[in-house]
Amino acid sequence: MADPRPRLIASDLEGVLVPEIWIAFAEKTGIEQLRLTTRDVPDYDQLMQMRIKILRDRKLRLQDIQEVIAGISPLPGAEEFAGWIREQTQFVILSDTFYEFAKPLMAKLGYPTLFCHSLEVDDEGTITGYRLRLDESKRRAVKAFGELQFHTLALGDSYNDIAMLQRADLGVLFDPPKNVVDDYPGLPVVRNYDEARTFIQQWLAAG
Amino acid sequence: MADPRPRLIASDLEGVLVPEIWIAFAEKTGIEQLRLTTRDVPDYDQLMQMRIKILRDRKLRLQDIQEVIAGISPLPGAEEFAGWIREQTQFVILSDTFYEFAKPLMAKLGYPTLFCHSLEVDDEGTITGYRLRLDESKRRAVKAFGELQFHTLALGDSYNDIAMLQRADLGVLFDPPKNVVDDYPGLPVVRNYDEARTFIQQWLAAG
Repeated sequence: MADPRPRLIASDLEGVLVPEIWIAFAEKTGIEQLRLTTRDVPDYDQLMQMRIKILRDRKLRLQDIQEVIAGISPLPGAEEFAGWIREQTQFVILSDTFYEFAKPLMAKLGYPTLFCHSLEVDDEGTITGYRLRLDESKRRAVKAFGELQFHTLALGDSYNDIAMLQRADLGVLFDPPKNVVDDYPGLPVVRNYDEARTFIQQWLAAG
Repeated sequence: MADPRPRLIASDLEGVLVPEIWIAFAEKTGIEQLRLTTRDVPDYDQLMQMRIKILRDRKLRLQDIQEVIAGISPLPGAEEFAGWIREQTQFVILSDTFYEFAKPLMAKLGYPTLFCHSLEVDDEGTITGYRLRLDESKRRAVKAFGELQFHTLALGDSYNDIAMLQRADLGVLFDPPKNVVDDYPGLPVVRNYDEARTFIQQWLAAG
């Protein structure tokens, strides 16, 4: 018998709906050091402190950063894709970015619900720190949706999505790099929004 | 010190953003019996079975019902209010209605995230039953948001919202009937969207 629970799609943000924000920001501003990721600096806190120091040294305040981010576009087709999902079923974006950075991009996606982290900003608008909402935030959100009796499909592209994809009723890799596919051969893969739409349609119809 | 957690607003649907759907449906169709609520028939299952029987007897299928509901408007100003909240913070609607009924109204509100219940519909499109997602669904959703480290404000107008309002970090009554105010004098009250906006702005600024 089909699973009678209502459906909910949880999706990663960067790499699925928008470009990697730090990299796009580095490109827009020409600050090469901001291209570094956890692949280059494995300690996340060390990486974030470095990024915050660079922004402070360049006197880039949150507002300046948001203006740059406002010039970044979602991935081509992302707005239509996110809008289409919201017409079909419930949709929550689970991301490790920060609300303050994501906001200009959320406006372009029609303000879907977003669960992510936040920055610490002083009265002058300088970023002084960051605050992770909770550990394993994506996996725990999908777990909570399951406990609230939703049947969940999760979409993600990278290693930091795997726990969420495995915890969901159905985890799907969206245009992942080859090493992720090689490491998790059991996860279905979609390569673009058309394939994702077909996949989601079948999943919804099977409800 | 201010609470550093990101903010989330959980809102009831009927009475806060849209009219009571069964009553509006009864008015549109002239089926007086569908105006009955749990005030008239305290047993919810008995009330729902009666409603389903009336719809079946009148040969009203889900599609017919959705066409009628598509003619119902959100409360005046609700679309702007819901849109404004989504620009400020995260927003999830918690309701005891059914996805199949709410959908035409959700389209008019820009498809906010909605946690509610669902109907059982047969291959001919006849409603055969209903399925509550879980007991105490509003309170449990707010509890889950708290466990996911959100600081929550809940908005509701009626007795079935009280457990949610009490479980939230801040519960606010939106244009409630007098008996609800009398029974829960400790809950703050806002009377319209302007008052709610001012209240929410202060709550967000205090973050």
